Amino acid sequence: MAVPGPGYSITMRVSAPPSATVAGDLTTAVGQAGGVITGFDVVESANDAMVVDISANAQSEDHAEQITEALNALDGVQVRKVSDRTFLVHLGGKIEVQSKVPLRTRDDLSRAYTPGVARVSMAIAKNPDDARRLTIKRNTIAVVTDGTAVLGLGDIGPAAALPVMEGKAALFKRFAGVDAWPVCLDTTDTEEIIRTVQLLAPVYAGINLEDISAPRCFEIEARLREMLDIPVFHDDQHGTAIVVVAALRNALRVVGKDMSDCKIVVSGVGAAGSAIIRLLLHNKPKDIVAVDINGIVTRDRANMDTNMAQIAELTNADGAAGKLSDAIAGADVFIGVSAPNILTEADVASMNSDAVVFALANPDPEIDPLLAQQHAAVVATGRSDYPNQINNVLAFPGVFRGLLDAQAHKITDEMLLAAAEALADVVSPDQLNSSYIVPSVFDEKVATSVARAVSSAAGGGTKTGGGAKESALLSDVRD
Amino acid sequence: MAVPGPGYSITMRVSAPPSATVAGDLTTAVGQAGGVITGFDVVESANDAMVVDISANAQSEDHAEQITEALNALDGVQVRKVSDRTFLVHLGGKIEVQSKVPLRTRDDLSRAYTPGVARVSMAIAKNPDDARRLTIKRNTIAVVTDGTAVLGLGDIGPAAALPVMEGKAALFKRFAGVDAWPVCLDTTDTEEIIRTVQLLAPVYAGINLEDISAPRCFEIEARLREMLDIPVFHDDQHGTAIVVVAALRNALRVVGKDMSDCKIVVSGVGAAGSAIIRLLLHNKPKDIVAVDINGIVTRDRANMDTNMAQIAELTNADGAAGKLSDAIAGADVFIGVSAPNILTEADVASMNSDAVVFALANPDPEIDPLLAQQHAAVVATGRSDYPNQINNVLAFPGVFRGLLDAQAHKITDEMLLAAAEALADVVSPDQLNSSYIVPSVFDEKVATSVARAVSSAAGGGTKTGGGAKESALLSDVRD
Repeated sequence: MAVPGPGYSITMRVSAPPSATVAGDLTTAVGQAGGVITGFDVVESANDAMVVDISANAQSEDHAEQITEALNALDGVQVRKVSDRTFLVHLGGKIEVQSKVPLRTRDDLSRAYTPGVARVSMAIAKNPDDARRLTIKRNTIAVVTDGTAVLGLGDIGPAAALPVMEGKAALFKRFAGVDAWPVCLDTTDTEEIIRTVQLLAPVYAGINLEDISAPRCFEIEARLREMLDIPVFHDDQHGTAIVVVAALRNALRVVGKDMSDCKIVVSGVGAAGSAIIRLLLHNKPKDIVAVDINGIVTRDRANMDTNMAQIAELTNADGAAGKLSDAIAGADVFIGVSAPNILTEADVASMNSDAVVFALANPDPEIDPLLAQQHAAVVATGRSDYPNQINNVLAFPGVFRGLLDAQAHKITDEMLLAAAEALADVVSPDQLNSSYIVPSVFDEKVATSVARAVSSAAGGGTKTGGGAKESALLSDVRD
Repeated sequence: MAVPGPGYSITMRVSAPPSATVAGDLTTAVGQAGGVITGFDVVESANDAMVVDISANAQSEDHAEQITEALNALDGVQVRKVSDRTFLVHLGGKIEVQSKVPLRTRDDLSRAYTPGVARVSMAIAKNPDDARRLTIKRNTIAVVTDGTAVLGLGDIGPAAALPVMEGKAALFKRFAGVDAWPVCLDTTDTEEIIRTVQLLAPVYAGINLEDISAPRCFEIEARLREMLDIPVFHDDQHGTAIVVVAALRNALRVVGKDMSDCKIVVSGVGAAGSAIIRLLLHNKPKDIVAVDINGIVTRDRANMDTNMAQIAELTNADGAAGKLSDAIAGADVFIGVSAPNILTEADVASMNSDAVVFALANPDPEIDPLLAQQHAAVVATGRSDYPNQINNVLAFPGVFRGLLDAQAHKITDEMLLAAAEALADVVSPDQLNSSYIVPSVFDEKVATSVARAVSSAAGGGTKTGGGAKESALLSDVRD
């Protein structure tokens, strides 16, 4: 059963007859209906009636309705209006375009627009690299999706994907000062997506692919990396992989195991699972066994696509076959990026001692973390209401900050590994324990540490943030 | 000869020996070299030396160098550094992406991003029209170019066009609160441009085509208008046409002529000229004669493209032939969107009395306006250093504000005409004279009047600005 959370928070405007117990009556009714009250504000108060705004977290839309019904059932009480705070946040969109230059006078216009802008355009025409100094290209990336694999919702299309891409853009700015713009494409054709991104690229210094379904995402990423001179990053793959590898490094520190002694089972071989396996291999574990809906991935499996064939080649050194329960026995680490409730308590009990379980399926994990805890030493999920949340927000803002600072033309596995190490190291030895293997997303060191590591691996300096670079550049403009 | 302007303004950091006359010596040197001083700031002052920042407008880059040389030639004076203020304005780009939502706490994240955003995405998947309420689509347009006809610079490519598109986006926000985003495409293929814009369209509520060369721009616009359910506007055509028609309405008021009595010569039959002719025809002038580099456009001209054939059909009722000088004799109005210095003083003298001359070629008009003034009653140019500047900034922000406010799916000639009328009417009868036929771009009534006219012609309400709509919408979200 879902826990009431802020993703389902409502504000109810309620009129009630004034009495000594009215506040208590109202809040009790909400609480008995299972709502968690987060605010109680009196809007109007008169002798014969009072109006209050009650904010509460619910579990679902149906549950929100049950709560309002519980209030309406009280004598003389009427719920006049219910506002859904999540929808209110999204009204009119979550990002906007702002001018960074003054446009108050005719002189301002002459510099920022015609005729002055013509000289800037000519400078770039003469020296295309100047676009990285004199335009938004310096600090701007595209968040590109076709809407085929949005969150856990599947293929909902480009328009419905837009709120997610806007949110991503807002996070990029909030956590790393990166200007990110949503590109939601009305096609699912691999060739068209590749060509369109190529045509759009002049404006951007990086491409963040997002929520594009496997296996198309692999080819789109590989082909774009080959043809573009800016880094291409698929967050569902590499963002997830960075955070998982960082979390696993710290989890193994907690249990005192070495990666080279560990057998790792990865459940789910889509975008995330494949990228996790590839990045983990750089850390040289004893073995990785990949499992999907058809069981353990073996080299002799029929009808594998290119990605799956590569994964089969790279994993399962012992040639094991069978189901997840066959793979998990004697494993040290379980990493699930697959489906809810596919891992049993008995499965976890069959793992080696001091087992590590990352049950990352969203919103419902591969196993209830409280069950897993009975047998595993470290448990992590993708949920915000449980410790050790594996959240891509820990990676993508800092990764692109680093790429932009270094003016990187490519992204490499070395940069991803550097990001994972830097992220793991944000948790200091005295902070590290089984409930704290990754830092908080609000820890200010996260993005700067990741950015510095990526920038350094990219051969760039240690500058962070667009502001510092801007002032550094002032002196070399047309001196 | 160009006049020193803010498009070429520099700031020179100068060290000089202190003396009673040093300030006068420096400013005199700049003035004698032809520079116009706009600022003089002492940075350091000591017994043996002082450092000052001198800001000045120059005519060109060469002229800026001559000014610094003139200072260096003074005894003991050294120009340490020259900053080009236009380039400084462009450093790092002129626009940025800002988050409109708070992202301070975990609850904020849960509402703006996962898991809360999933419900918003599902709402849009169920009802696609909700994208106009719950995403940036409500207030966002794309400024699309292929960089083939940028300002007067020609085909400089998508990267070099970006500063212009950023400037445009900044103006959209500054004058009408519209969120505009630059889309600079790395192709000049008509089919690819059309298809790419179609694929990008889910994010946008309007398309502003910009600086795409003729005749491709006509087909691109026509095809996109047919396939998209959002308005498509080519500013080089329709923005220019709106401002020209508005200015001409007021110019004819000044000279007391009626449009139906006027013979109008339009020089230049590219994007701007063609659109001006088409919009003017709705105002039923006596006749329009179109002239291009090959002379008067006639119906029997060989090898005409579709656009030119249409223009030939629509104009030149008398079947005149010959050169510009043949067309201009006895004309009431000259509108030039063509090339510098192609209209002679004798040409203007051959026009009817109380002639109107719009010499709009940039940066150098078809005739020096001071010469034209000798024989014409009203003269306008595209220049900011002469009265009656025909500037698209007077049209495009308000046009899109109106389209967005009305949630328009199409743009029609009726809306363009309404915009032109509204723009003309911003100049009140007691303000109107031969030097003031269009309002200042900084007149706050411009964008709101144009927006109201367009929105009303589109069947929308009279709301203006995203802010007002946002609060109006609050009450109907999931009530």
